[in-house]
Amino acid sequence: MQSYAIIGTGAVGGYYGGCLQRAGFPVHFLLRSDYNLVREKGLTIKSVYGDFTLSCVNAYNDPQKMPQCDVIVVALKSTQNHILAQLLTPLIRENTIILLLQNGLDFEREVAEIFPQAFVMGGLCFICANKIEPGYIRHIDYQAISLAEYARNYQSCGITGRMEAIAADFTKANIEIVLKEDLLQSRWEKLVWNIPYNSLSVILDATTQEMMGDRYSRQLVEEIMQEVAIGAKSCDREINQGFIAKMLSHTEKMKPYLTSMKLDYNFKRPLEIEGILGNALKMAREKKIDLPKISLLYQQLHFLDARNRA
Amino acid sequence: MQSYAIIGTGAVGGYYGGCLQRAGFPVHFLLRSDYNLVREKGLTIKSVYGDFTLSCVNAYNDPQKMPQCDVIVVALKSTQNHILAQLLTPLIRENTIILLLQNGLDFEREVAEIFPQAFVMGGLCFICANKIEPGYIRHIDYQAISLAEYARNYQSCGITGRMEAIAADFTKANIEIVLKEDLLQSRWEKLVWNIPYNSLSVILDATTQEMMGDRYSRQLVEEIMQEVAIGAKSCDREINQGFIAKMLSHTEKMKPYLTSMKLDYNFKRPLEIEGILGNALKMAREKKIDLPKISLLYQQLHFLDARNRA
Repeated sequence: MQSYAIIGTGAVGGYYGGCLQRAGFPVHFLLRSDYNLVREKGLTIKSVYGDFTLSCVNAYNDPQKMPQCDVIVVALKSTQNHILAQLLTPLIRENTIILLLQNGLDFEREVAEIFPQAFVMGGLCFICANKIEPGYIRHIDYQAISLAEYARNYQSCGITGRMEAIAADFTKANIEIVLKEDLLQSRWEKLVWNIPYNSLSVILDATTQEMMGDRYSRQLVEEIMQEVAIGAKSCDREINQGFIAKMLSHTEKMKPYLTSMKLDYNFKRPLEIEGILGNALKMAREKKIDLPKISLLYQQLHFLDARNRA
Repeated sequence: MQSYAIIGTGAVGGYYGGCLQRAGFPVHFLLRSDYNLVREKGLTIKSVYGDFTLSCVNAYNDPQKMPQCDVIVVALKSTQNHILAQLLTPLIRENTIILLLQNGLDFEREVAEIFPQAFVMGGLCFICANKIEPGYIRHIDYQAISLAEYARNYQSCGITGRMEAIAADFTKANIEIVLKEDLLQSRWEKLVWNIPYNSLSVILDATTQEMMGDRYSRQLVEEIMQEVAIGAKSCDREINQGFIAKMLSHTEKMKPYLTSMKLDYNFKRPLEIEGILGNALKMAREKKIDLPKISLLYQQLHFLDARNRA
């Protein structure tokens, strides 16, 4: 039975870690501000799929005190990734699996360079969940994860046995999981949604519904998606027109939705600008491809983020 | 002695028309909402260059009732230009001069196509003035006009005798005036400032000082200026790097300034998006030149403008 370390017990880490513990897996949670409360009272998850409480969890406020686990699940906001090297070092042994449940591009490569002895995976979470208060998570909708493994230079490494073992655990924990052969393809696909909607929700102070309801902003969303496809192409990944059309029509039918970046903005938290936009620009620029609209959004967001937290 | 019709008696029309009347020229003002008040009480101009009141002005609320003047000064916001054909028709005779004191590109060509019997000029106003209340204008700073004449397809037509006659009148009225040989060059130059600062002041809700104080937005301003230069180049006009550097350093030294578009936005008036951005995009597109950043700003502004006035 694989053991799990959850690095960052917010909505994502708390929800998936909670599901794993409920299913009987040994789970160890790293916390910071919520440490005392969660150690005493455990975790409560109000979920559309059924509420549950874990009255006792293995809580830590220092990775040095955590046991070495088989799988390290990184569920921090990517704006914290500069402390990952320090946080994970005590937890890594030969063949540890590091699973990044984060938004954004190219973090798996960064982590794999720091920890060459580990296997690194990316999990793309399609979930609506918020931490309402310490130890209390509200899970509103969805919970599927797309899982893919990183290999040097983003070579596609197919479906590995390691991925299958994690999928078996997650399935046992009632988490929908889809295995993907090409991590970079999946990451770029997710940006097709994340870049336009996250950026414009903050810049225009708009819900997805407002953006889709105005002909100028709807057109703009689509043009930004086309630019993401150009970025993907610079990395030899293909985003086809059908995929873009599906994202648009899917979003049109969604309930009005505040993106994760807009929530971060409203709570004056740092925005995941580098992971979601900056790294896409960087990867394309390495191939001499300019993404002018995404670059402009990137600069607008940095201006707004700095002022928001001044 | 030339007579003047002022079409649109806001801050710009009221200030320059008032200066001309004070200098002894026959001036006729077209008004709409302020008609009754101005007819009774005249115009008051509080100016950094000296206050003055015109207790009696020739005020009209219908262009049919106005005399045919030698020079028709159009000082409406360009968002009103769809009614220009109707407004000006009764005022035009052979060789009338139409002088557009408006922001934005390519309106002289539009007006010249409607009134081929007239001479059309563009005046680029460098003025800080607001209408505080009906018949009351506050002139804060600057007042220079750059004047150029339109010729078919924007051929440069040099300094004409008509321009010199107007310059003599304006000089007599204590208005600084500079004569320019190439209208299209002057219009594109003005967009170097107007496009980035007007757009971003609304989208980012920022003063010029805030934009210049953040490294991302400052860089963005400069990149947008470079894109304006690409637009100018598509029309065979050259914006050199020295000009861009001068605009940036000049703006850095300015007092924090709310642009005219931001003021329009704050007062929930329609924004001059088409004149300032849309026509630049259109002229470049006719030459198969794409301006992706300006196009994105254009769409963002349309979204914000529609919501602002919903």
